[in-house]
This record gives sequence, C-alpha cells and structure tokens, in this order.
Amino acid sequence: MPWEFKLTRRVEFAETDMAGIVHFSNFFRMMESTEHAFFRSLGFTIHEHGPGATTGWPRVSATCDYRAPLRFEEEVEIHLLVAEVRTRSIRYEFIFCKTESGTEVARGQLSAVCATVEKATGKLVPIPIPDAIRAAITPAPREKLSVELRTS
Amino acid sequence: MPWEFKLTRRVEFAETDMAGIVHFSNFFRMMESTEHAFFRSLGFTIHEHGPGATTGWPRVSATCDYRAPLRFEEEVEIHLLVAEVRTRSIRYEFIFCKTESGTEVARGQLSAVCATVEKATGKLVPIPIPDAIRAAITPAPREKLSVELRTS
Amino acid sequence: MPWEFKLTRRVEFAETDMAGIVHFSNFFRMMESTEHAFFRSLGFTIHEHGPGATTGWPRVSATCDYRAPLRFEEEVEIHLLVAEVRTRSIRYEFIFCKTESGTEVARGQLSAVCATVEKATGKLVPIPIPDAIRAAITPAPREKLSVELRTS
Amino acid sequence: MPWEFKLTRRVEFAETDMAGIVHFSNFFRMMESTEHAFFRSLGFTIHEHGPGATTGWPRVSATCDYRAPLRFEEEVEIHLLVAEVRTRSIRYEFIFCKTESGTEVARGQLSAVCATVEKATGKLVPIPIPDAIRAAITPAPREKLSVELRTS
Repeated sequence: MPWEFKLTRRVEFAETDMAGIVHFSNFFRMMESTEHAFFRSLGFTIHEHGPGATTGWPRVSATCDYRAPLRFEEEVEIHLLVAEVRTRSIRYEFIFCKTESGTEVARGQLSAVCATVEKATGKLVPIPIPDAIRAAITPAPREKLSVELRTS
Repeated sequence: MPWEFKLTRRVEFAETDMAGIVHFSNFFRMMESTEHAFFRSLGFTIHEHGPGATTGWPRVSATCDYRAPLRFEEEVEIHLLVAEVRTRSIRYEFIFCKTESGTEVARGQLSAVCATVEKATGKLVPIPIPDAIRAAITPAPREKLSVELRTS
Repeated sequence: MPWEFKLTRRVEFAETDMAGIVHFSNFFRMMESTEHAFFRSLGFTIHEHGPGATTGWPRVSATCDYRAPLRFEEEVEIHLLVAEVRTRSIRYEFIFCKTESGTEVARGQLSAVCATVEKATGKLVPIPIPDAIRAAITPAPREKLSVELRTS
Repeated sequence: MPWEFKLTRRVEFAETDMAGIVHFSNFFRMMESTEHAFFRSLGFTIHEHGPGATTGWPRVSATCDYRAPLRFEEEVEIHLLVAEVRTRSIRYEFIFCKTESGTEVARGQLSAVCATVEKATGKLVPIPIPDAIRAAITPAPREKLSVELRTS
C-alpha cells in the first residue's frame, strides 16, 4: 500500500541507556530508518546524488510520545502511515509496538521537506516533490490516523 | 534563575550526517544534556541511586521544530526554560541559537516524569517530584514561553 | 558452527557523517551487534539478569582497521570468528565485506570478559565463563584467523 | 606544546548503556573530539572545504584498551599525544583519566590519513599532509609514549 509500511527490528545494546531502556532519542532514528525503508520499498532513495546538487529530505519537525519502556533484545514493529502530502513536504505518523505482546511503546510524527543541497555551498533549497515520488505515495485514509496526535 | 538555564557547546563531527548537518535526533540529546546540566547547577542529579530503587526522569514526550541547519564546529547556545511543573512531571522548552550569528536553529520541548525504577524488576513507577527539587524549580513567566509551540 | 557467525545489515543514514561515509566508531557497534546475534543464535543472551547481580561482557579491548569506505544503504556482511576462549574472556575477529561487491571494508577485534555487575554497588567482578556457554563456543581453526591482526 | 593536548569533558546520559557505564564505542568518539579540539587549538580544522574537493582525515585504524568503567556525570580528562607523523598520516595516543580520582580508565590509538574527497564522486584520495599542519605538529618525545601499546 502506498500509504503505509512496517519495519521490524530488534533493540540493540548500544541503543539502551543506564536506565536500562532504549534512549528516547533513538526512537527518532527508528522513525527515520522506517521512512528510508519505505522509500526503498517503492524503488526510491531518500538521498539522491545528482550533478551539482543532492536531493534530500531535511526534517521540519519531529515529535514522539512515550507510553512504555522498550528493552534490549525486544523486537519492535514500527508502523509508518503517510499522514499528509503537500507540495514540498510529507508528514508521517509512526506507531511502535512490541512484536511479542503487541504493547504500544510509542507514537511519533516526522515532517520532512524535499530539498536540494547545493554541493558548492551546502545550502538547502526546498523543491516540489518529484513527480515519480508524488505518484507513488498517497496519504492514508483519515480514519487510520491518530486524531489525538498533534498536527505539524 | 530557577526557571532557565543556558548551555553552550560546539558541534562534534560524529553528530553530523552525510547531508553535512547535525542529525535531527541529536537535538534531543542536546536538550537532555541541557536539562541535566540545569539539574547539576541546582545541586541535583537526574539519576539518583537509592537502596533498592533508582530515581530518574523517563520521557513522556519530546518535540523539535527545525529552522536552520547546524554544522560541524559551530557553537550553539541551548536555552532551557521551565514551561510547567506538575505533581509528577516537568515540561521544558528549548531554543537553539548559533552563538556567533544569533540565528535560531531549532525549538523543542521535553516532558519528563519523576519515577523510580525498581532494581529487582526494572519497573518504572511515577512518584511525586521530591520536595527539594520542587522548591528549587519554578515555571518561567508565561510571556517568556513560546506560545506557538505545541502543548504536551 | 560454534566458532563463526554472519550478520548482514544495511547502513542507516544516522550511521553516516559529513564525510559521507559510515562513522568509524559505528564499526564497533556493528561488531557488538554481531557478537550479540551470535549469542542469541546459540540460545544465550549477553546480558543476564539474576537475583542481586547481572552477568555481562564488558570490553577489555577493541581494534579496527579500515580498508574502504562504507556508504548509506550499502549492505554489509559482518563475519565473526571466535579467535580465543580463555577462562574468563573471549576474543573475536570480525571481517566486514560489502555484500554486492565482496569488497573488504574493515577488520576488527573485540575482547570481552565475563563479569557480574553487583546491582547494589554497580561493581564489575570478572567470573569464569559459565559452562553452558563454554560448551557451545569453540575457537576457530587457526588457519581461518587473520595472522596479520594484532593479538590482544 | 605541538605534540600534546588535553580535553576535559563530563559523561552524558546518552553515552551510557544498560550496564550503567559509558558504551565502549563512545571512547572512539571522545578520541576524535580531542583530535579535533587539538586541531582547532592550532588554528586548523579537520574538515576543510575547498573548490571541488574536501580535505579530511579518514581513519586507518583505531584501538582502545579498557581498564576501569566510566560513569554518568564523571569528568574525564583525555590526554592526546602525537605518536608518529608520516608523509600522509598521523598516529595519536590517548589516555583517559577520571579528573577527580586520577584513575586511568582507558588507553587508545588512532591513525588517520590526510585525504581529499572529490565532491563529484565521493572518492577518497590520500595526499601529503599540508605544510602548515606538518610545521605545527611534532611527534612527542619517545619516553612520553606508551611502549606497551600496539603500533599501527
């Protein structure tokens, strides 16, 4: 489906902190990994090297609500939903659940803007989402999305 | 002041990604470092080992809005403001500015709940904020806070 | 085979740095992930919670030689070989190759000591490797190991 | 002195793991931060953007021996010594000590090669160390270096 994707992974030791749980910042890395795997599943890459410029997806905003601790070696399923597709940006929702128990661990959002990075200057310039990507990605039906989540 | 704190640090190489800028997840680590330095400045630690239990501050939610890229070796000033003090939780606001230019780079929020971690089971149990900490930390005046930021 | 293991994974964006390649410190995290997956494949975990103490494998030494850059979205095969099993410690060798081209990217070593962490004090005490683990793990035949690599 | 440098920093929460100590991979990041601060102290940067190419210092090898655990909020002094300066590469030694107790925590080495990264292709090409850098950096006297440490 062009509006959802699931990634399953196991928590690694280096992702935990001295409180014995996954460090909260690592949930943002897991969201990103899922977004990138979603792009790969559609035949795209999130980071395209062209002549003179690189196309990427810098972040506009990121949020996460934490509901239960996630621990070393637990398997987590990360469910990506496309929440909104605009001219230059996409917003995703993510739901993290433990594979074994189904316990919801966290919910998050990521908004990213399509942009080129000029190689000479390193400057980021927002651009319209390329047609091929726009054609392949659709927002999820409204009822699939979390209404309680903040909008960006 | 018991409702604000500033931390200044220089961006390290390992914090950047192949887009040439600080990876967005690292802003959450910088928020946390600032929160912890704020606690130290008041004579507290964020992670207290007691007999049979550890007191800590697991995160309830985290958000960040990104406004400008931050690059290797740039110095960034992270301004913490106490936005809200509840019975069991504290909410902070953070503003990231480049020291040299004053450019605002990002704004974020962190909500953390005071909790004990039972050593035997690893279970997290929310507790009222200890009196000494409550006495030392006050919410910032309303007009100092970002109204446009989402509330948790 | 009780003396080798292979883990295949794809490079994630957050593992790269502004030089456009995997940050050198992340090779150590990949070695560790492979070691832990090796333990799981034998039915063990690297971090065992017992009453009053936790058994783990703190590192004694770690080395890595870098031969070719590894980039975003490349798939890498990490080959673990058990180099030495002592009373209290194990030494592993690792060879990193790109799945597609077979190019060798890096070679490393990890020495870890079996130890208990006393929960009350956090003190690390080396202990003999438990019999079940010792019975399951054998050093690789000498000719499989890299002679040019430093010994720990 | 052009052959040594000291960096002092405090351990951050996100650098710890569930064993309650600094994750072993983070010692490599601390070595790198010290190397970069050493360069800055001499008026250089480790990552120079030129027209068409970037000059950097990719790693050839990295090693670390761990002697004592390092914990959250402990202050650590990282002592860099220039061990060897070759035509295209530099080798450093690092000694990590706790500021308060003087306890030696770890010792490591880093070998880095001076190289340009062609912006168009991303290819790394080793080059002779620029004269200005060569003039400013000298190997430490032999008796200052750890003889027991492996040579690269």
